[in-house]
Amino acid sequence: MRIASFRRALGLAAILLSTAPLAVQAQTKADSVAIRRIYDEALAHGESYENLRYLTGQIGARLSGSAQAGQAVQWGQTTMEKIGLDRVYLQEVMVPHWVRGTREKAQIKGDKGKGLALSVCALGGSVGTSGKLQARVIEVQSLAELAALPADKVKGRFVFFNRPMNPLYIETGQAYGEAGDQRRSGAAAAARRGAVGALVRSLTLAHDDFPHTGAMRYEDGVPQVPAAALSTNGADKLSQLLKADPGLTVELEMSCQTLPDVKSYNVVGEIRGSKYPEEIITVGGHLDSWDLGQGAHDDGTGCTQSMEVLRLLKATGLRPERTVRAVLFMNEENGVRGGNQYAALAKAANEKHLAAMESDGGGFTPRGFNIEAEPATVRKIQGWQPLFVPYNSTEFAVGHAGTDVEPLKGQVKALIGFDCDSQRYFDIHHTAADTFDKVNRRELELGGASMAALIYLISKYGL
Amino acid sequence: MRIASFRRALGLAAILLSTAPLAVQAQTKADSVAIRRIYDEALAHGESYENLRYLTGQIGARLSGSAQAGQAVQWGQTTMEKIGLDRVYLQEVMVPHWVRGTREKAQIKGDKGKGLALSVCALGGSVGTSGKLQARVIEVQSLAELAALPADKVKGRFVFFNRPMNPLYIETGQAYGEAGDQRRSGAAAAARRGAVGALVRSLTLAHDDFPHTGAMRYEDGVPQVPAAALSTNGADKLSQLLKADPGLTVELEMSCQTLPDVKSYNVVGEIRGSKYPEEIITVGGHLDSWDLGQGAHDDGTGCTQSMEVLRLLKATGLRPERTVRAVLFMNEENGVRGGNQYAALAKAANEKHLAAMESDGGGFTPRGFNIEAEPATVRKIQGWQPLFVPYNSTEFAVGHAGTDVEPLKGQVKALIGFDCDSQRYFDIHHTAADTFDKVNRRELELGGASMAALIYLISKYGL
Repeated sequence: MRIASFRRALGLAAILLSTAPLAVQAQTKADSVAIRRIYDEALAHGESYENLRYLTGQIGARLSGSAQAGQAVQWGQTTMEKIGLDRVYLQEVMVPHWVRGTREKAQIKGDKGKGLALSVCALGGSVGTSGKLQARVIEVQSLAELAALPADKVKGRFVFFNRPMNPLYIETGQAYGEAGDQRRSGAAAAARRGAVGALVRSLTLAHDDFPHTGAMRYEDGVPQVPAAALSTNGADKLSQLLKADPGLTVELEMSCQTLPDVKSYNVVGEIRGSKYPEEIITVGGHLDSWDLGQGAHDDGTGCTQSMEVLRLLKATGLRPERTVRAVLFMNEENGVRGGNQYAALAKAANEKHLAAMESDGGGFTPRGFNIEAEPATVRKIQGWQPLFVPYNSTEFAVGHAGTDVEPLKGQVKALIGFDCDSQRYFDIHHTAADTFDKVNRRELELGGASMAALIYLISKYGL
Repeated sequence: MRIASFRRALGLAAILLSTAPLAVQAQTKADSVAIRRIYDEALAHGESYENLRYLTGQIGARLSGSAQAGQAVQWGQTTMEKIGLDRVYLQEVMVPHWVRGTREKAQIKGDKGKGLALSVCALGGSVGTSGKLQARVIEVQSLAELAALPADKVKGRFVFFNRPMNPLYIETGQAYGEAGDQRRSGAAAAARRGAVGALVRSLTLAHDDFPHTGAMRYEDGVPQVPAAALSTNGADKLSQLLKADPGLTVELEMSCQTLPDVKSYNVVGEIRGSKYPEEIITVGGHLDSWDLGQGAHDDGTGCTQSMEVLRLLKATGLRPERTVRAVLFMNEENGVRGGNQYAALAKAANEKHLAAMESDGGGFTPRGFNIEAEPATVRKIQGWQPLFVPYNSTEFAVGHAGTDVEPLKGQVKALIGFDCDSQRYFDIHHTAADTFDKVNRRELELGGASMAALIYLISKYGL
């Protein structure tokens, strides 16, 4: 049992009011009322949760180039049209088409643990094994450790990258960023030293049996060798068995392959600004997802929240003075072709972009925003932070905004990343466990409301 | 995918350092280092998650008076003894012994929905139905609406209290507090008007089939009638059917009963203060739980976090200057006998209590603390808030601390409630869904660390 807490409410807004000039006080009060209307609409009548239920349940995983990605484009367009926007349209873009295939397994061959299955999945972009690939294993903690090994320790083997994510960071994204080089570049680094493949510890702080996929890259002039992620439990097991039997071998079989590029689309919907229609504010998430799970927190939540921003502005009658555009970007996961295309088209059309906000860290309880902009612009945005105190979403920090809006850098005054609680995200990220049931309705709707509130302020005051 | 955010870290602590006198700067730096040690220990070697796994999985639900509550007392004592404290002991207390029994069901009798089962559970403390109890139903939204009804609309019927929790509050606890009168006092209010029983909409913002139990009270001189909670889906269904057929009846059968009081215990462990051993700081959660589910978030998390506070102080070598005591309170849910007993014994022994902290809002991501104290004491505690900026746990608000520490009011300088994210708590609160799998390891360990950090500061500086 827990008794109610009686507190907070409009504390800081009240302080702001008491010390500011009267005209500013009136504006602040009006903004505070407008934002409360946005949150009320989201909490009482929010639609992002039910939209997400459909996207994850009826369409499901939607890797670029897949039939489901095509269905998701249709769904995004239809769903935006229902909001009653001024314009909904598609932006064509060619995307990679990698497929996992039907075979994906690994087992240990050796005296100890013989026949033990390892929970693995191919990393996105990997070549397959052309039948079964059996080899000895050399374990390393880093790309640097691999580079320093003598050639005979690597040649003909699997390189097993087993550096865990650092649990000491408070924000899990920092640990993910630091450990990611193994997944992205491990296979190329291994192949350069003559290895036959790469086995990479999953990028998660959880201890479980889910392998986490994610993008990897080959390098020109270096042989393309298969790369697989091991679950953290599997990686721990393999490491333990290697200590007992350094000569053990692993047998890997994967039937993944890359097919020719496919035509796909970003989905765009916009409310035209009432005063400055030529000034554009973008808000988006990515429509594609990895092929495991349902792409719920990554990034169905960002898509449904971005569309919800437009719906909230419509439903509350808060017509923006500048144009607000929701974009469902295609192909964030393995190419960022949609994000690049959006920025290229904006540049070609000489569009004036004020801000671009991205939600791609899950649909958990909002904490604030990460801002990339000139210091004066950062300060201007941080000046609105007191209006978010009643909603406990007050961390207006300088930090990375997101992968899909990043190509706009140089064309936009501010890149903004929606920031939410990060503790659970990497437990499910890029796995079969990224499913609708992991999303909490209120957390999701609160996130959409906080995004809409900041976008409303930018649309009113500019940057 | 989400790239790391590079930010925050020691921002505010740095500001604090730059403007304060040198001696204060040195203290602040030392405190900031000590707190980082606490968090590192919790994140790298925290034991509260594995302790909780045992409590929930091996003992499970542990309502006051049950055999499992007795096992939990043993477990608490043993677990604290393993930490290597200066003293571990039990405080005897007589507790209520209510049992649910084996029969608990309800169905609709009527043309529409005939035979439809309603998902129900007895409210804690309710009498049983002595066989099957069938009656017509009158739906109300509040105790006031019931009081205003003509006698013939109530007499001989079930009163169906169907006011939902208000979704517009950002903190769910506020909505819980406002809707709770129906559950606590509904049956007595209904019986006073001649009703035969009370059916109460579950206290949750979720829409699902879990009935939520919780304490109810009878009143002297008013007949004791059965009281049951309906799941929110069940309540919506019943309300809808009543509109179509106001004459429908509900048949309720419950075999719950109250047995004689049972001897039980608070479990107490302490580290004696190195300088001021007579000054006591309490930190606790409640060991009992409702009989549905496993009592994971309510309040296994508070118990394991409170024990972890002592372990963290030991493991980091941060010996407190004042005595720190972890208390696993017995019987918070349906009597607060343990909390009352703890305060009574403290008073009888003329103990000097500085602060009492409680964790009973779940084991979710920490947000800060709710403080009940004189304004100067509140300001002193809030003065430490900058030290919590690197940990995103900065909401040092005035608010209700908790039910088990409340009896200490008047004997203690500050009551402090650990405050964590509230969005998911009432989805599972008092239901079969309050299970270990809903707890995230990092969220739980971060909570224990934030509690230990504040207690360390109080133990060093006093209040």
